[in-house]
Amino acid sequence: MTHLDIDRLLAELTLPEKAALLSGSDFWHTTPVERLGIPAVMLTDGPHGLRKEAGDGEQLGLANSVPATCFPTAAALASTWNPELLTGIGAALGRECRTEGVAVLLGPGVNMKRSPLCGRNFEYFAEDPLLAGELGAALVTGVQSQGVGTSVKHFAVNNQETDRMTVSAEVDERSLREIYLAAFERIVTQARPWTVMCSYNRINGVYASENRWLLTEVLRRDWGFDGLVVSDWGAVNERDAAVSAGLDLEMPSSQGIGPRKIVEAVRSGVLDEADVDLAVVRVLHLVNRALPGLSDRQPYDPQAHHRLAHEAAVQSAVLLRNEGGLLPLAPTGGPVAVIGEFARTPRYQGAGSSQVNPTRLDDALSALRTSFGAGREVTFAPGYRIESEQVDETLLAEAVAQARAAAVAVVFLGLPPAAESEGYDRDTMALPAHQVTLLERIAEVNDNTVVVLANGGAVLVDPWQQRVRAVLEGWLLGQAGGGAIADLLLGRANPSGRLAETIPLRYADNPTIGAFPGEHGTVRYGEGLLIGYRWYDARELPVAYPFGHGLSYTTFGYGEARATVHGAGPDVRVEVGCVITNTGDRAGHEVVQVYVSDPHASVYRPRQELKGFAKVWLEPGASTEVTMTLDARALSYWDTRHGRWVVEGGDFDIRIGASSRDIRRIVTVSVTGEDLTLPVSAESLAAQWLADPRLGPRLSAALATRTDPSGLGALLVGPDANAMILAIPMRRLVRFPGFPVTEEDLAHWLAETGP
Amino acid sequence: MTHLDIDRLLAELTLPEKAALLSGSDFWHTTPVERLGIPAVMLTDGPHGLRKEAGDGEQLGLANSVPATCFPTAAALASTWNPELLTGIGAALGRECRTEGVAVLLGPGVNMKRSPLCGRNFEYFAEDPLLAGELGAALVTGVQSQGVGTSVKHFAVNNQETDRMTVSAEVDERSLREIYLAAFERIVTQARPWTVMCSYNRINGVYASENRWLLTEVLRRDWGFDGLVVSDWGAVNERDAAVSAGLDLEMPSSQGIGPRKIVEAVRSGVLDEADVDLAVVRVLHLVNRALPGLSDRQPYDPQAHHRLAHEAAVQSAVLLRNEGGLLPLAPTGGPVAVIGEFARTPRYQGAGSSQVNPTRLDDALSALRTSFGAGREVTFAPGYRIESEQVDETLLAEAVAQARAAAVAVVFLGLPPAAESEGYDRDTMALPAHQVTLLERIAEVNDNTVVVLANGGAVLVDPWQQRVRAVLEGWLLGQAGGGAIADLLLGRANPSGRLAETIPLRYADNPTIGAFPGEHGTVRYGEGLLIGYRWYDARELPVAYPFGHGLSYTTFGYGEARATVHGAGPDVRVEVGCVITNTGDRAGHEVVQVYVSDPHASVYRPRQELKGFAKVWLEPGASTEVTMTLDARALSYWDTRHGRWVVEGGDFDIRIGASSRDIRRIVTVSVTGEDLTLPVSAESLAAQWLADPRLGPRLSAALATRTDPSGLGALLVGPDANAMILAIPMRRLVRFPGFPVTEEDLAHWLAETGP
Repeated sequence: MTHLDIDRLLAELTLPEKAALLSGSDFWHTTPVERLGIPAVMLTDGPHGLRKEAGDGEQLGLANSVPATCFPTAAALASTWNPELLTGIGAALGRECRTEGVAVLLGPGVNMKRSPLCGRNFEYFAEDPLLAGELGAALVTGVQSQGVGTSVKHFAVNNQETDRMTVSAEVDERSLREIYLAAFERIVTQARPWTVMCSYNRINGVYASENRWLLTEVLRRDWGFDGLVVSDWGAVNERDAAVSAGLDLEMPSSQGIGPRKIVEAVRSGVLDEADVDLAVVRVLHLVNRALPGLSDRQPYDPQAHHRLAHEAAVQSAVLLRNEGGLLPLAPTGGPVAVIGEFARTPRYQGAGSSQVNPTRLDDALSALRTSFGAGREVTFAPGYRIESEQVDETLLAEAVAQARAAAVAVVFLGLPPAAESEGYDRDTMALPAHQVTLLERIAEVNDNTVVVLANGGAVLVDPWQQRVRAVLEGWLLGQAGGGAIADLLLGRANPSGRLAETIPLRYADNPTIGAFPGEHGTVRYGEGLLIGYRWYDARELPVAYPFGHGLSYTTFGYGEARATVHGAGPDVRVEVGCVITNTGDRAGHEVVQVYVSDPHASVYRPRQELKGFAKVWLEPGASTEVTMTLDARALSYWDTRHGRWVVEGGDFDIRIGASSRDIRRIVTVSVTGEDLTLPVSAESLAAQWLADPRLGPRLSAALATRTDPSGLGALLVGPDANAMILAIPMRRLVRFPGFPVTEEDLAHWLAETGP
Repeated sequence: MTHLDIDRLLAELTLPEKAALLSGSDFWHTTPVERLGIPAVMLTDGPHGLRKEAGDGEQLGLANSVPATCFPTAAALASTWNPELLTGIGAALGRECRTEGVAVLLGPGVNMKRSPLCGRNFEYFAEDPLLAGELGAALVTGVQSQGVGTSVKHFAVNNQETDRMTVSAEVDERSLREIYLAAFERIVTQARPWTVMCSYNRINGVYASENRWLLTEVLRRDWGFDGLVVSDWGAVNERDAAVSAGLDLEMPSSQGIGPRKIVEAVRSGVLDEADVDLAVVRVLHLVNRALPGLSDRQPYDPQAHHRLAHEAAVQSAVLLRNEGGLLPLAPTGGPVAVIGEFARTPRYQGAGSSQVNPTRLDDALSALRTSFGAGREVTFAPGYRIESEQVDETLLAEAVAQARAAAVAVVFLGLPPAAESEGYDRDTMALPAHQVTLLERIAEVNDNTVVVLANGGAVLVDPWQQRVRAVLEGWLLGQAGGGAIADLLLGRANPSGRLAETIPLRYADNPTIGAFPGEHGTVRYGEGLLIGYRWYDARELPVAYPFGHGLSYTTFGYGEARATVHGAGPDVRVEVGCVITNTGDRAGHEVVQVYVSDPHASVYRPRQELKGFAKVWLEPGASTEVTMTLDARALSYWDTRHGRWVVEGGDFDIRIGASSRDIRRIVTVSVTGEDLTLPVSAESLAAQWLADPRLGPRLSAALATRTDPSGLGALLVGPDANAMILAIPMRRLVRFPGFPVTEEDLAHWLAETGP
């Protein structure tokens, strides 16, 4: 296949051909134009493993796809806090696409985890846009290094499944810019994804697919996106409006409805053909980008990819609790009771569009048996049926008996597959009650109980965790998760995962109570900027485990920290450094986290925000200085008056720590900000007038010299100055009866002093 | 003065005269038209006491007004939970207006207490719209019974002082209807106030003074308001737009700017003269309403009004805590140390437009000395200087010495006058730190410490309250507060106040963190419906004292409760009854509160909402059955799809108790609701189509009989039905490639089955 000459093709394509190019030809392919040698290319799921329908692309094919490596889902991968690892996984995904002739892999999903109940949280990264953006960019970079495109999704504000195809997310602009769009922005500007997938929902009333502000002004004008916007599957509402807004490619095929609408709209003058051409160029450009890879299909090494999936799983699991250092388990000793069906039948991925047909599947039970070998007896009891809602007394009794007889009980719990999926939200953060009952009975008879969790979205761990010694949060670890869990439990690997979302003590503590999933077509993002740890910090709420938390089998010391400011205003940058030492007796990873706080801001700001992180490997006793550069954006907020990011001058706290609530060092730096003064106008308050270096003296002089029947002048200056009167806009104040300054005076003084 | 013939006048008035009539002639009077015999009438402050400028109306005159009875402010009056008492106070206010020739008293203020930091909370009633509405209506009824008008203010959503003249309150419609407009609605429909005062702020971007939806559609069309809308003083932005919106009277005079604008706008065709005429008619109608009272000025009895102010103060104070029954104090016994400057220099009212020049002023110190007489020695130490921010070691040492020597220490604490005012908000909920230091030192030396508080908005009471035996929350009790406090402390009166707002444990718990007072011209009402106790309930937060709480010197038992449903849907009513018994040994008031809960609603509803209350007086041992009728509104929510109040069928809990967190009886009733089904359309979800009794069979039959290359049909019905696919709107689903039903099928079936 040869590179397309886009200019020539644009001249030769008929309007119906152009319109056809802007929709898929089936579920997974773009439309070819054989007359002009334009081939179809394939876009297919999904973010943590290729999901390519085994047939000819004529079906959605949720349950029938070619074998592919199933990596941990995004919720797990985010817990690695390891961009390099994600770039490696991305490259592996890209190689599998190359093998299968896929042009664009539909992912990653980088929506924010606004509510823990979002049914699709398993395939989103984090409650923090910097972390999601850095990891998403790393994954995109990896995939695209193989000549395969990505589709960053779901753009934007698609943070729930309930009514996802119609609900309007009502969000103020600052929260959009600072939270809900920020991960997309980081990925677009850093990793240049080939495509962005627009979401189903509406944003402040306008469908994402028809939202010109979103798809053109923000994405292309503000961020410089040069790729293609594809609809989520079925996200197009009115095809002509979508073209005008900047949505290039409708997927899947709409049985001809979309193309017909485009042709009619151009012919009737509703739609500008220039907008159609823009979209056509982007589709052809995508084909050109894909052609080299498609022309050179190469096999991949499934064993190597499985090993990578294993390493990813090792780094994804988060050791939440380890009382008395129960873990790691010694290779020899008394019997180990493995309890819970999930040990034998792993829950390792989510449902819906990201459901992969794995090349191989490791279970923890087999891996533990292999790992202990002859060193320790491993018994097994399923304890419960995964899809049941009832305690099974027979299974429970068997499990308790085994736990009683064992030196250690390792209990595998989690959410059943039906609890989490694309398409609907969860109705509780709790584990199934029958599993908790089982655990409580086990804990009564065995003081050395370890819990291993399998769940895509966060689950509550209180109060049951108080009864157990250790909790390993495994998320959905992919096809190699079983072996990874065994390695972590036995200490062949050292836990290094850190939470990418807060685990609250109670669901009632979360930011979205009363505003999730909304009703009657709208959902109010009432908490504004206060998503995740920003909320728990602002409200000084205790949590079960804070954002950034994760234990290791070793310990790390934080030496003195430094932070040096260079430049000022929009060009400011802060060099941060801190010496980290492995103070324990095992090699391991530490994740050094840098939060920024602007305690004296003129606008409301979260108490702290993650602005940098680094994962470092240290042998016992070894030290390294971790350094990071924070740019102006790390200090900025989105100013709705100026319509841009601004750096406000003042003291900032650079907070360096091991989690959002384990800050080890704080360095305060002084930053020179931008001039954010707005010009004074007639609408400005009396206090603003008086404070203005040029207008203030004019106003004061008039008040001092003119007679004032109103008596108000005396309430503006001097000992009787009254805050209530000072807070009146001058334009209104001059209308008060008897006030000695007029509208004409204001206009005159403004003209005199100029802008 | 004779009744005006409005029809005749309208015909004779010139356009400039009409325009002039729509603005004041000075700070406090409407514009007269002497040529046609139209007199000026006076409108003046304020809600808890007449504040009439002593001069000729040419000044705002904050500090110079005629003597008048200063009743407790609204924050205090609301704590009486006694509409009859408020009607009596309203009548007294009306009589004082009659004496002074005032046509309209500017009040009451019924904005919701959204944040405890609102600087004007002292003159607002409650965090609950039913309580504020019932009490506001009672006050209006009382004032207007004297032939004097009221002005219910500030309409609407004026819940903060910061940027009050320009800020846009961003609130969803359901929260507006159910919370922020509901008290106004209740007063307008029950008490027919002569005027409503529009607020300074914007609502969802539109100035209240230019908000046609608010002033015309909601106020007049939906609620049937037949009075006049007056601007808050200086609230008019563009006079012509305000007339169009339904703002009749601009106050004060705008030095001719407003009338000129009206004339120009009519002449240029921007403004319809019919809209001007509507406003003119309303102004003339107001004059007609006022004329009888103005023609018949009568003196009032200041002594009788002072006695009424005393009774109001008695019922306003809330006994929060009384460990071991320390209160009431015995009339004889050891010395009583009265400590705190507020005992001698009472803080009894707020600042700004509601600052009254009282006819008399009682202080608690004198009243306590008189009350104890020879029975107990009363010592006094000021302890602190009110406006200071520092501990005064000399005053502190003196106070501690007196407390050490006394049997009981009664410590008067509170907010200094400058802490709360119209025009600015508070920056903390805490008492001044130096006062808390004093209290802690007193409590160290005297185990019988009582705190009496003086504050307009709520203050934090934790952790210091743990160190004292009793806390009496006095709010701002008006000119007779000192004597009322003495009567309550000695048990000559039995406390009967109940909290009209929650006192949280910490400021960080309140609903508006991060969203008050907003920034850059907007404030997001992110908490939606969850104001006050609705929030603390939803989040299961412990509080210092819940809404509705207040102790008595006696106790009350709640007998069996009954609740009987009559009618259905919009005509439903529920008769509630409960027998209350005074089980203690003193006569006293109980406030019986009825909350309604709709635990199975299809929309998010607060866990409980106050829907009725009754204050009853019972002698020791006496019983009475308290009965109330709840109407349909008490069960309704505002449905944004239907644009009206609706009663959804199902089980409701009728919760009867002594506070929002002291529910004594719950009766569950079954209510037949309205049919809220919306017609199915092409936009409806597949699940809704399948559930429809007429469309479902058609769709199912087509899916069962037609070939389906897409495979999607099998995911809609039968064992593989998939929630994700069922949640797709039919109009989108039929476009998926190969789906066996078309857009034309949908249109055909919809036409067949009809609406």
